[in-house]
Amino acid sequence: MLTTHVPAAPVVPGTGRLRPLGLGEVRITGGFWAERQRTNATVTLRHIAHWQTREGWIGNFDLAAAGTLPRGRRGREFSDSEVYKFLEAAAWQLGTGPDEELEATFRDFVARIAAAQEPDGYLNTNFGRPGQVARWTDLAWGHELYCLGHLFQAAVARGRTDPDADDGLLGVAVRAADLVCEVFGEGGIESVCGHAEVEVGLAELGRLTGNARYLDQARLFIDRRGHGTLPDQEWGRAYYQDDVPIRDAEVLRGHAVRANYLAAGATDVAVEFGDTALLDALRRQWDRTIARRTYITGGQGSRHQDEGFGDDWELPPDRAYAETCASVASTMFSWRLLLATAEPAYADHIERSLYNVVAAAIADTGDAWFYTNTLHRRDPGTAPDPDAASPRAFSSLRAPWFDVSCCLPNIARTLASLPGVLATVDADGLQLHQYASASISTRLEDGTAIEVDVATDYPRSGVVRVGVGSTAERPWTMTFRVPEWAGAGTLTYRPASGPERTVASDGPTIALTALFAAGDVVEFVVPVVPVFVRPDLRIDAVRGCVAVQRGPVVYCAESQVGDSDAPDLAVLEVDAGVPPQDVDGRVRVSARWSGHAERAWPYVAGSPDSPDGESGTLDLIPYHDWGQSGLCSMRVWLPLT
Amino acid sequence: MLTTHVPAAPVVPGTGRLRPLGLGEVRITGGFWAERQRTNATVTLRHIAHWQTREGWIGNFDLAAAGTLPRGRRGREFSDSEVYKFLEAAAWQLGTGPDEELEATFRDFVARIAAAQEPDGYLNTNFGRPGQVARWTDLAWGHELYCLGHLFQAAVARGRTDPDADDGLLGVAVRAADLVCEVFGEGGIESVCGHAEVEVGLAELGRLTGNARYLDQARLFIDRRGHGTLPDQEWGRAYYQDDVPIRDAEVLRGHAVRANYLAAGATDVAVEFGDTALLDALRRQWDRTIARRTYITGGQGSRHQDEGFGDDWELPPDRAYAETCASVASTMFSWRLLLATAEPAYADHIERSLYNVVAAAIADTGDAWFYTNTLHRRDPGTAPDPDAASPRAFSSLRAPWFDVSCCLPNIARTLASLPGVLATVDADGLQLHQYASASISTRLEDGTAIEVDVATDYPRSGVVRVGVGSTAERPWTMTFRVPEWAGAGTLTYRPASGPERTVASDGPTIALTALFAAGDVVEFVVPVVPVFVRPDLRIDAVRGCVAVQRGPVVYCAESQVGDSDAPDLAVLEVDAGVPPQDVDGRVRVSARWSGHAERAWPYVAGSPDSPDGESGTLDLIPYHDWGQSGLCSMRVWLPLT
Repeated sequence: MLTTHVPAAPVVPGTGRLRPLGLGEVRITGGFWAERQRTNATVTLRHIAHWQTREGWIGNFDLAAAGTLPRGRRGREFSDSEVYKFLEAAAWQLGTGPDEELEATFRDFVARIAAAQEPDGYLNTNFGRPGQVARWTDLAWGHELYCLGHLFQAAVARGRTDPDADDGLLGVAVRAADLVCEVFGEGGIESVCGHAEVEVGLAELGRLTGNARYLDQARLFIDRRGHGTLPDQEWGRAYYQDDVPIRDAEVLRGHAVRANYLAAGATDVAVEFGDTALLDALRRQWDRTIARRTYITGGQGSRHQDEGFGDDWELPPDRAYAETCASVASTMFSWRLLLATAEPAYADHIERSLYNVVAAAIADTGDAWFYTNTLHRRDPGTAPDPDAASPRAFSSLRAPWFDVSCCLPNIARTLASLPGVLATVDADGLQLHQYASASISTRLEDGTAIEVDVATDYPRSGVVRVGVGSTAERPWTMTFRVPEWAGAGTLTYRPASGPERTVASDGPTIALTALFAAGDVVEFVVPVVPVFVRPDLRIDAVRGCVAVQRGPVVYCAESQVGDSDAPDLAVLEVDAGVPPQDVDGRVRVSARWSGHAERAWPYVAGSPDSPDGESGTLDLIPYHDWGQSGLCSMRVWLPLT
Repeated sequence: MLTTHVPAAPVVPGTGRLRPLGLGEVRITGGFWAERQRTNATVTLRHIAHWQTREGWIGNFDLAAAGTLPRGRRGREFSDSEVYKFLEAAAWQLGTGPDEELEATFRDFVARIAAAQEPDGYLNTNFGRPGQVARWTDLAWGHELYCLGHLFQAAVARGRTDPDADDGLLGVAVRAADLVCEVFGEGGIESVCGHAEVEVGLAELGRLTGNARYLDQARLFIDRRGHGTLPDQEWGRAYYQDDVPIRDAEVLRGHAVRANYLAAGATDVAVEFGDTALLDALRRQWDRTIARRTYITGGQGSRHQDEGFGDDWELPPDRAYAETCASVASTMFSWRLLLATAEPAYADHIERSLYNVVAAAIADTGDAWFYTNTLHRRDPGTAPDPDAASPRAFSSLRAPWFDVSCCLPNIARTLASLPGVLATVDADGLQLHQYASASISTRLEDGTAIEVDVATDYPRSGVVRVGVGSTAERPWTMTFRVPEWAGAGTLTYRPASGPERTVASDGPTIALTALFAAGDVVEFVVPVVPVFVRPDLRIDAVRGCVAVQRGPVVYCAESQVGDSDAPDLAVLEVDAGVPPQDVDGRVRVSARWSGHAERAWPYVAGSPDSPDGESGTLDLIPYHDWGQSGLCSMRVWLPLT
């Protein structure tokens, strides 16, 4: 089931329309994401290691090895998984170039983890010892398999980026995976983990090692889910997707991270086993989830109570949960569908999730982040304590750490492996899905070597220039995604010799087939201008409002606390008759601040607003930049006058 | 501190602008509330006793008496309190007339509770025994004092309605209250209960028994709250109002039931101790809560996660929590402020809460109810299991019982004691706050006896006729509240002999002073017609929508599942240019169903709705009648065309 060429990428399906490229084949060389990758490498990964050490999460493994648990164990029941996610992120980072300090931390963590593994392969600091809950007895909430899924992904990252590494991580993972297959295989415990994740982990470990048993086990977990083997609870079995079998479900529901991890794992299973019916079911679920349960930012999950999807059209901006992890998970799901189907809509969603959730969640400084990503904040909250874990969703400022800190390592592994989602190849050529300055050096399916350089300041502009380096002596096809927000694009081929050629398309892709030669330039252009965007009128919470989007980037109004000139976002209205204008990296709109009376009772016959508001302009900033300058209020959706 | 005449009423302050009337002084004789009182007496109280027996909540006391706990204990940690609330409701009901079966149940329950009380007065089935958590060690979540607060209120109800009862309930309460004062008095445990309630219980027990120690203890609890003696937790100390001292707070916040019970208890303390600063603080908090944190139905609490108030203006109709208990508690708080200040705004809020939350929560049949009271339901949910406790907020149909069933006994005690909120007296006369057919026989503060009969079909019409029976030989004043929604009213005095007199007022009250004689009629009229009501524009979730209100009653659109002619509420728009019309008990509005395209991505540049919608009319029903005919969708707020 292994492909002959195995890219250093998180997902390497045995089959599918597109082949992913590995970190050795794509490198981001500048621009928006290069900057974030640099901060991730220099700040964020170290920040995570520091806090995971300080909070005792890596120390739990030492206690396990010393045999002194449960005394002194710290963190939530799933804290092991955070360490594994850090290792995965570090492995991808180390796959892009050497970093002695990070390599040392990686090896130190792996050694301490390995020392905690039990002889039969079991590995979890929270279960199974005297004084702890017995192994596998709390599948609903225990996260044991979930933790192992992240272990497997970490081992896969290391195995793909450094196949000869002698740190032993892959061995740890294999021993744990063998135990999982033994305990949960045919004839074993007939249930699943409350938090899906082991499925993607097993699938990829199977792909890496060639051990079909792991893929079989992933399929078993997928087929078992939805039959009510987990207990009913406050939010129903939909919370952990155990309400309806995956192939019968119509939409993602329940906990948004669990739902997306599960769907990603189910896609792996569908692809590996040629299960077209399952793949079709997943595609339908993705479609309805995107059409009815996703914020304009790409964020998913509108309920704080269970970190869950709400009903169709339930997308309140002020109570948007839009957990950072949910968008990482949604990107994982979408990427797998893109590889399987080559449909550009999946790349559209990855783009919006990256620019408006992943990039929004992490501070420019790399050492603070949002767990949830609201689209409207009235109350600025208070500044987070720099020396303590913060509660979720409490402030307009990013915090260094949270009681539950699943998101930051998730951001880190996404950024470290980001080059992998830029492009793919198939038998006929190269597909560009995400636009960033990059160098790409790969081979088509038949072994034809190609090298191109991408230069762009996207998303500031929509001009993407691809310079062809060495290439094959046969025609091949270069395919560009025309983003959903652009609607149309043009492509101009300027061969080193010969006449220029222009192709236009109203999407969703533009392709050009040519006998490319070194020195050829292909210029792809989409219009990047600010536009007003309106919601489907069934999204009641933002009916009568507009948002401003510029290329893939959603904008917002921000109002700093203490700024006496700050706009009052509570009574702001925008005149959509005046087109939004680019002004120094911001977008200027025509606005009015409605007059309003203070009333003892806020519901009145007749109009509650008075006509004596002030008019003016309002400068919007990219949503991913909000909350970086101090406590503030913020809103993405702007009521119309 | 006792008044010479003690009415059989839940709240009998030692001082204040108005004196409450007891169940012996006011009787509801017909109409909207008489019907609900009848169902409460004949169905609901028996339904509660049945389920509390079936769920083992009363049985827990038997286990306690038998010394076999914790084995076999059932229900949540606060289940004792539900039994006490049932007893309170039963006591008020028995205070209006004999009911042998109910009296027998009452005495049976009391005997079983008394048998469970420990020698030192401690009473709780969930704490203190070997195998249970120790007494008073989990004040944040244990609800021990909360349960006792409800015990005290039950004992007060019995003590006021049947002072000579030999059932022993008052003795049980007094022994428990003495223990509370001993344990939590000066020099005792310096903390408070996570769920406020003991404060109102102690205050009223103090008023009933004349034991100032209980009032002192209530004051201690009020003064202690807000100093962080309870632990910080996921939603902060605001959840149980332990974030800010009560006299420094600006608004109700955190858990909506806790906040209102606490404010009610604090009002009792402010009144009894002449603490004007505290009373003023509570009035300011009430003002801002009503102006910014209350639904048009009177419902409070917009967050499911912590059953809490959201921020100012955070009032999503689809995620309205609006717990039934919160409105009962808000009514308690408002009623105490009304007695203290005579301000009619408090009665306005009681009216809207009664018609649109209390009456909406309970089914017409009396044996099913809503825990939460949403203002918009898209997903009809599934029919509740008639033989099992249901989860909250899961269906458009009322359920017979919930895992947490605090609300139904709260409704029952409110309905049983409802005559007590219709009218008050002071030195000069009688004040009518709520309108219902009723007979009132009481004395003014100086002993002047008055008798009146109120006849009305309010809220169907706004005509209220008061016939004077026997009366005094001195002039006195009859005062009518002009409801906030009416804005103005007229009052016509038709003496048995002599010329007619008419007084008009644009509110908030109309008063008439006369030397009344038997046979005189006073007719109060307010216009009850359907009107469109608009929200303050800062309530983003319903900006650009209207609601329809007719008198105090909020209306809604309902769409039955399976009705092929049912309106599609998702794309409904209303033309507010056409006034709403009364049609056979419903209200007809001019409506349009917008055409809409199904899109893969719901946010588009340009208008997302197509102009080819259908127009027609839509009949709205009273909100309190929704969900009584089958699974349905529903909305109160209607988008404007």
